[in-house]
Amino acid sequence: MNITRRYSRGVKVGDVQIGGGAPIVLQSMTNTDTRDVERTCAQIRALMDAGCDLVRVAAPDMESARALGMIKDNVGVPLIADIHFDYRLALKAIECGADKIRINPGNIGSFDRVKKIVEAAANKGVAMRIGVNAGSLEKKLRKEKGITAEAMLESCLNQVRAIEREGFEDIVLAIKASSIPLTIEANRMLASAVEYPLHLGLTEAGIPGAGSIKSTVAMSILLAEGIGDTIRISLTGDPLNEIRDGLVMLRALGLKPPGLDIISCPTCARSHGDVEALAKRLHTELSGVDTPLKIAVMGCEVNGPGEAREADIGIAFAKNGGGIIFKRGEIVDRTKDIFNSIMDELKGII
Amino acid sequence: MNITRRYSRGVKVGDVQIGGGAPIVLQSMTNTDTRDVERTCAQIRALMDAGCDLVRVAAPDMESARALGMIKDNVGVPLIADIHFDYRLALKAIECGADKIRINPGNIGSFDRVKKIVEAAANKGVAMRIGVNAGSLEKKLRKEKGITAEAMLESCLNQVRAIEREGFEDIVLAIKASSIPLTIEANRMLASAVEYPLHLGLTEAGIPGAGSIKSTVAMSILLAEGIGDTIRISLTGDPLNEIRDGLVMLRALGLKPPGLDIISCPTCARSHGDVEALAKRLHTELSGVDTPLKIAVMGCEVNGPGEAREADIGIAFAKNGGGIIFKRGEIVDRTKDIFNSIMDELKGII
Repeated sequence: MNITRRYSRGVKVGDVQIGGGAPIVLQSMTNTDTRDVERTCAQIRALMDAGCDLVRVAAPDMESARALGMIKDNVGVPLIADIHFDYRLALKAIECGADKIRINPGNIGSFDRVKKIVEAAANKGVAMRIGVNAGSLEKKLRKEKGITAEAMLESCLNQVRAIEREGFEDIVLAIKASSIPLTIEANRMLASAVEYPLHLGLTEAGIPGAGSIKSTVAMSILLAEGIGDTIRISLTGDPLNEIRDGLVMLRALGLKPPGLDIISCPTCARSHGDVEALAKRLHTELSGVDTPLKIAVMGCEVNGPGEAREADIGIAFAKNGGGIIFKRGEIVDRTKDIFNSIMDELKGII
Repeated sequence: MNITRRYSRGVKVGDVQIGGGAPIVLQSMTNTDTRDVERTCAQIRALMDAGCDLVRVAAPDMESARALGMIKDNVGVPLIADIHFDYRLALKAIECGADKIRINPGNIGSFDRVKKIVEAAANKGVAMRIGVNAGSLEKKLRKEKGITAEAMLESCLNQVRAIEREGFEDIVLAIKASSIPLTIEANRMLASAVEYPLHLGLTEAGIPGAGSIKSTVAMSILLAEGIGDTIRISLTGDPLNEIRDGLVMLRALGLKPPGLDIISCPTCARSHGDVEALAKRLHTELSGVDTPLKIAVMGCEVNGPGEAREADIGIAFAKNGGGIIFKRGEIVDRTKDIFNSIMDELKGII
């Protein structure tokens, strides 16, 4: 499966490039109180350690906007400020060093205010993400066209054209809904209409599990079509889940270099051992490991030896309840102490 | 997003049709000991109650193959028998009432034995799923072409052509790997090469979470292209997870009628209440509910009222920590006892 990425112009967010042929940028967003600089910095560091490329921070008030400066100095990575309603928060965030401003021009008030944000961003080389959301579509468009991909596209293009007229083009666009078909359709239309890089997301996907699957449906279809330059899987709760699931998705698509991949069979009446317990124990034990390795846990002799042989480390349960351990295709052990045998084989590799 | 399904001929499995314009058939597989008729029946009933359309049961020995008859009499739904290595198990399963036999002709031995299965299936109007798996590809093809989509396609077509020559066409095909790009590529090629319905799956996807996301990437890309007539999300552990996640995916794609959809915002510095706790409590409390309803849990005033208004029941947390409850667009309550207010509004609907 070869994904031919859609052409998009590159937009710089600090030293991170979105679009223009750069690898997909994986984002998340803090959910700490932004004014609590220490906790916010800790969460940003945890996200970056987990594989996040860019972090967004909400600035719902002046104190939060000011805190961005301290946060950025502390963590030393580019930051995106998430601004709604008050253009002065955007100006303050830019002043304090935000590298990208995310606004929905529809809720900033008059275009004069949007213009002030654009001017400030242009002066400091700050990028802007313009977001259109089905949930906050302008009343006029909603009445005329309903909540449709066409209405969302029109709303987005109106905003883009107005900002372009100010000579500003460091723009990333997002067009989102909580409906998956609507999100896909609107993004396909937007991808054909502009050359700006696109930020993919599904609004209010929900909690990990169902929310991850819904986001993956929407994004993987678009990414497979080459659409999307940066993504965020939005999940209710700890943002680390967004990075964990986003990495799995991007790696599955071949859009991020591989990491640790533990595959395991679904178990059936044929399983000779407790595949689930072993797979879960390996997931827990190796949760911090990111070495590109494939570990296969197989319950029986049907696909077991085949898959185990193709993996870096493989184990196929045998009829006696023990297991055959494979390392890059060679049998290296037959044992009942499977977990420790695998961990031994992993020594020096991870 | 309109999905134009690929044309495929319809194949009947008892009263369930796969392909030929029928809705996507959601499958799972028992992981109980098939000889334990009581536990296997209980698991099949739980799967069907959760939304499963067809259940597969492994028959690794004669006692299991014989048990299929009792199981089928007990549960009263069509059954698929999963057979490897020994053609006599397939004959016994067919004799005992299996409605479809899943084999990998490559591990049955001589084609004479496959022929015996085909004859028995034809005599009783039993369908067959022919599965090719990257992990058990014939040595000769593996050496010649490597583990590639081309080799997998060739293996599959060789088997299909041989069975067609026996005049048998009630065939469902599956071509799987644990690699997502390989699974996608092989299925695209197979979809163009034949008119049989296709069973989609990702081999050894892993445990729920990562395994669900990997499966969703592979399948949603194919399903969006109209490829796939029946699916199974294979996950290590309790097969109920396969149905739960499969339903979320198919509903997200609009390929199953909607059920209960709880959407919730990802939470950020702006959230006025504990979105995560409320969303999780609703998920738990409403876990058995399948009424087509959208419930929105929103942390603040940015997209909150908009999304909450579009939902059947919506709640947007307010600055005072309380919530505004919406019912089909109308504000029906402002309360601090949000959970009970939502449950009250749901009375008579669910």
